[in-house]
Amino acid sequence: MMKLFTTPQAPMASVAPDVRDGNRRAVIDTVLPSVDNGRFAVKCIVGERVRVKAHCFTDGHDVLRVQLCWRPQGKAEFREVPMKPLVNDVWEAAFSPPALGPYLYTVAAWVDPFESWRHEMTRRVDPDDVRIASQVGALEVAAAAERAEGADRQALANWATELDAVAADPGADVSALKALALDEELAMLARRHPDRRHEVRFPSELPLEAERERARFSTWYELFPRSAGPTPGVHGTFRDVEARLPAIAAMGFDVLYFPPIHPIGRLQRKGPNNALASGADDVGSPWAIGAAEGGHKAILPALGTAEDFRRLCAQAATHGLEIALDIAFQCAPDHPYVKAHPDWFRWRPDGSVQYAENPPKKYQDIYPFNFESEDWRGLWAELRSVIEHWIGEGVRIFRVDNPHTKAFAFWEWVIGEIRREHPEVIFLAEAFTRPKVMHRLAKLGFSQSYTYFTWRNTKQELVEYFTELSTAPGVDYFRPNVWPNTPDILHEQLQGGEASVYMARLVLAATLSANYGIYGPAYELRDHLPRSPGSEEYLDSEKYQLRHWNHDDPASLAPFITRVNHIRRENPALHRDRGLRFLRIDNDQLLAYAKVSEGGDNVVVTVVNLDPHNVQEGWLELDPQSVGVDRSRAFQMHDLLSGQRFIWQGDWHYVKLDPHSAPAHIFVVRRRHGDERDFDYFL
Amino acid sequence: MMKLFTTPQAPMASVAPDVRDGNRRAVIDTVLPSVDNGRFAVKCIVGERVRVKAHCFTDGHDVLRVQLCWRPQGKAEFREVPMKPLVNDVWEAAFSPPALGPYLYTVAAWVDPFESWRHEMTRRVDPDDVRIASQVGALEVAAAAERAEGADRQALANWATELDAVAADPGADVSALKALALDEELAMLARRHPDRRHEVRFPSELPLEAERERARFSTWYELFPRSAGPTPGVHGTFRDVEARLPAIAAMGFDVLYFPPIHPIGRLQRKGPNNALASGADDVGSPWAIGAAEGGHKAILPALGTAEDFRRLCAQAATHGLEIALDIAFQCAPDHPYVKAHPDWFRWRPDGSVQYAENPPKKYQDIYPFNFESEDWRGLWAELRSVIEHWIGEGVRIFRVDNPHTKAFAFWEWVIGEIRREHPEVIFLAEAFTRPKVMHRLAKLGFSQSYTYFTWRNTKQELVEYFTELSTAPGVDYFRPNVWPNTPDILHEQLQGGEASVYMARLVLAATLSANYGIYGPAYELRDHLPRSPGSEEYLDSEKYQLRHWNHDDPASLAPFITRVNHIRRENPALHRDRGLRFLRIDNDQLLAYAKVSEGGDNVVVTVVNLDPHNVQEGWLELDPQSVGVDRSRAFQMHDLLSGQRFIWQGDWHYVKLDPHSAPAHIFVVRRRHGDERDFDYFL
Repeated sequence: MMKLFTTPQAPMASVAPDVRDGNRRAVIDTVLPSVDNGRFAVKCIVGERVRVKAHCFTDGHDVLRVQLCWRPQGKAEFREVPMKPLVNDVWEAAFSPPALGPYLYTVAAWVDPFESWRHEMTRRVDPDDVRIASQVGALEVAAAAERAEGADRQALANWATELDAVAADPGADVSALKALALDEELAMLARRHPDRRHEVRFPSELPLEAERERARFSTWYELFPRSAGPTPGVHGTFRDVEARLPAIAAMGFDVLYFPPIHPIGRLQRKGPNNALASGADDVGSPWAIGAAEGGHKAILPALGTAEDFRRLCAQAATHGLEIALDIAFQCAPDHPYVKAHPDWFRWRPDGSVQYAENPPKKYQDIYPFNFESEDWRGLWAELRSVIEHWIGEGVRIFRVDNPHTKAFAFWEWVIGEIRREHPEVIFLAEAFTRPKVMHRLAKLGFSQSYTYFTWRNTKQELVEYFTELSTAPGVDYFRPNVWPNTPDILHEQLQGGEASVYMARLVLAATLSANYGIYGPAYELRDHLPRSPGSEEYLDSEKYQLRHWNHDDPASLAPFITRVNHIRRENPALHRDRGLRFLRIDNDQLLAYAKVSEGGDNVVVTVVNLDPHNVQEGWLELDPQSVGVDRSRAFQMHDLLSGQRFIWQGDWHYVKLDPHSAPAHIFVVRRRHGDERDFDYFL
Repeated sequence: MMKLFTTPQAPMASVAPDVRDGNRRAVIDTVLPSVDNGRFAVKCIVGERVRVKAHCFTDGHDVLRVQLCWRPQGKAEFREVPMKPLVNDVWEAAFSPPALGPYLYTVAAWVDPFESWRHEMTRRVDPDDVRIASQVGALEVAAAAERAEGADRQALANWATELDAVAADPGADVSALKALALDEELAMLARRHPDRRHEVRFPSELPLEAERERARFSTWYELFPRSAGPTPGVHGTFRDVEARLPAIAAMGFDVLYFPPIHPIGRLQRKGPNNALASGADDVGSPWAIGAAEGGHKAILPALGTAEDFRRLCAQAATHGLEIALDIAFQCAPDHPYVKAHPDWFRWRPDGSVQYAENPPKKYQDIYPFNFESEDWRGLWAELRSVIEHWIGEGVRIFRVDNPHTKAFAFWEWVIGEIRREHPEVIFLAEAFTRPKVMHRLAKLGFSQSYTYFTWRNTKQELVEYFTELSTAPGVDYFRPNVWPNTPDILHEQLQGGEASVYMARLVLAATLSANYGIYGPAYELRDHLPRSPGSEEYLDSEKYQLRHWNHDDPASLAPFITRVNHIRRENPALHRDRGLRFLRIDNDQLLAYAKVSEGGDNVVVTVVNLDPHNVQEGWLELDPQSVGVDRSRAFQMHDLLSGQRFIWQGDWHYVKLDPHSAPAHIFVVRRRHGDERDFDYFL
């Protein structure tokens, strides 16, 4: 059954101050990360260290204890991790979600009488003070004993008694008394039994979603199965795609994504190059979904059967490839839904269905769903069942077509519903739209998001955009998946067809973002002619017709792509979006950046020549300490693209890149044994 | 009766998505300003334009309508203001709270079928499209008629009928049909009766506190009444202060603040210069509150009677001065509370009360309250009654001593309680502590806050600090009140006694911050000797002894202060903290900034020479357009300090400041008639 949101709207403004009793003195001002104060989940990966910071303090000089509390959603019990103070009243701790799914975390803090007493005791010098304070301490320790059991209780009680006795003895040695009061081993014992009566908890439990590694690090290859056949002019099949799997896997991709594989509408079918009229042999656009043979749960017969599709998924898996399907929630005019569920569409006074339009543009071959339908519950349930159908067929990754033209509430609901049963499912939002809309979709639950990368071409554009993408708050919930091309976007830069541009854009995508993809074989074979000057559409686009590709073209970039994807796999620094830092370099045509792995062991420095025509050279600033090398030592920069090794020392380093051989360096930093981090020099 | 927070802790994380029904398609992603998502109130002034921004959008291309909704807390009905789209899905509207007190605001949005239809209609060209769309529109208009009454209903019904009829007539002229469909006057009518069935509301109602003007713009003078007498060595009285009122008012101050005026403890009383021992004639520290004569509600007899105090308040009012009292919630050992309420203090095992200490430092003359007392309710109620007592005596401004050493929850409660009956009361937090603690106090309700200004001395320090203070999020709730000196802080910079330093620091305080104050007469008479080298304490500080001041000293800075405060009063740009912008100037000893009034009419440009010894000169960048002057026109810079007038043109302007005559310019920009804004050139 469909479960809808029924929780009443809690007016946040009426949330009471975070005291229940006036004598609770700890303050938890802020907990980070937090997406819209807990309205949406922070994203992470199973096993990843989630670092939580809290701004905590109290009045006066007393000592706080602060605990990070976390639990899987659905479990009542919180686990706790002690938080440590950094600077400026910021406390930090980390935890690692052990399994897929949703979690909650919050922070507890209390003014700790034992720690406060102990902190003051360390600074006491006056003998009378030490004696009186020891008596006070004995009371605190005795109270801790009351809270403890067994051996702890006995040890604490003994300590309290002894402390009190020595403090009461005017002949006792004060430094011995102080040493007894500050005994570290006994203090550890007392800390295990704190007085938490005045504990304060942060008023929100913040949600977190743990996804699988591929949500954070994936390498996509998009192809049209119908163009996968070996014979020009013959409709390709899933079997033909099977034959391509070894080559695609060898290039280093791990996700193979298909445009919609469903029956294609015949009414209003578009011809080649988006012509309004089509001939009998025209194959139409795969996004005009639905015909007499079926709709979103059916397979275009020319591609094969459901059995063929399952076989393909299984074969792909043996090559380390996952099949991703396209979810395009729209209908061709002859989709069975139109007759079966007329109430899911808008009807016009002339008795026709309202097709998609953006006046004066018309898309008569596409009927959008009406998300304001009275039967929106029925519509939502059916659309969910489409996703569930393909999950049943073995698919776990969905690229969602234009999610920003469907109701946002629907996505939040459907992703939540699917994830409840299948937390391993990954959703990629194909929304090339305004920034706040793209961010909202990411907040609603999409694992990955398309980006503006295609239109970020200059050094300044790339620095600004990827700085934004790799820092909070965006990095906490928005995972970019960057594409140098798509079937919809042949960027002007690519229209010259220069290999140097294709290589540079690929290196940028593959090293700036942990998730990236290409639309192939158009990319590696440098298909580069636009439909018309100024257009970003491909000429003779596969969207409307069959194409045939010569995979044996000696100019294919497949070997280069293979190398880049191999470098990605081997270097954990490239498996995440955090840890990116742009480097100063005194040439506007050269872009340089370092990426570092979570633990700091793996550092990759990439330098890209953005000028496709000319050799560019410059001086790059890289502080050795920032990559774990002592300032006085040399270190090796191993260019994993060319295999060359360079010895660098100091802060400034000369680089030179000839676009006609290789437009980029992808260096890994190698440190000598005995340096701060111990690396194999000739790895 | 004391009302405590009883609202249960709403876990914000469980706040449902902002849909109640799946067919509500509008999204309100963010509403600003907002302090911790509505946990605390945004601050403003009665009558001020509160600008609210909302990030709103919907799926697809449909047109949204967005309303700002606001109400006084306690009134159920919201008033609404239509929000207008700016760029990037940001909508804006403003409202002005008409009276003191708390308000709530939120945002409502809906996808508007009429506006969506109309927007598409404007772009339609195909005659068939126009006809069918007109029929669709007739349905929308008829629906609007159903929602309307009276004349509106009739007019809309007529329009619907006509539109439908003309659309159905194949011979009708299409451009006339389109004109009828887009009739602006009828559209205005339809907009008055929108279809709000699918309206979405932001899930929080955000709190706002409207205070009186003096919370935002005030000029403080602090003095010790006991040193106000005309005769050296004789304890001053409220009557003596009365005699000083005309002079203080003439200097342009509007708040006159006294350290505590209560009986001073005799036990452990401190002698001059904070000596541990005191003689029989020593007057003690006013902050050691309470003795046999009474505590926080009593007046030190040597100062006068309650009647004298009321008379002083009334006299001050006739001079435009308000009296501010010190709220220092701590006790001398002989305060009546110690015997009457032993449970409000911490007791040590030796039977003594725990005095204030920060080991190894001890403050035996001060007993702090124990906010963890079992009787915290009784303690809170009594402390509230102290404030209420002085409100009863006519005081409406309180400077709170060290609020960060008392429980934060108490302040939130007591300020809320006081404001419920007396929304005109202003609280200033005297907390010189860590940044997050100071910000929390401001969030809890303090109207104004002490700052780090005293220790921000270089150009870079001042630029960074005041940029932070004048921008969001801080500027939404933290109102700085900056002091070049206090009885506790004689900054090293002032210890040379140079008039140029005293003038420069005063100009900075008075023009960078809308609220500022000085501790006088020490400031205008340049009392500058520290108790010891490296100390920020005054030698022979008034905190511990009587002082006598020569107000007739010809070197007094009173005339200069008078001038600066007059300039402040006359220029609305200086009445607020927003609207501050630092200007480029090519000399690190010169600081330059522009402040602009809410409407933009008043622009003040201040240039300060931070070097007390040398003439400094430099080129300052001021884009004429940024101050409302056409780039081709000259404009006048009228230095309100010296009276000199300069003609500037273009972007870069030469300035030169001799600290020995005046270390600053305070220019007001005067524009010629006929410029963008029409100002009197020789005002």
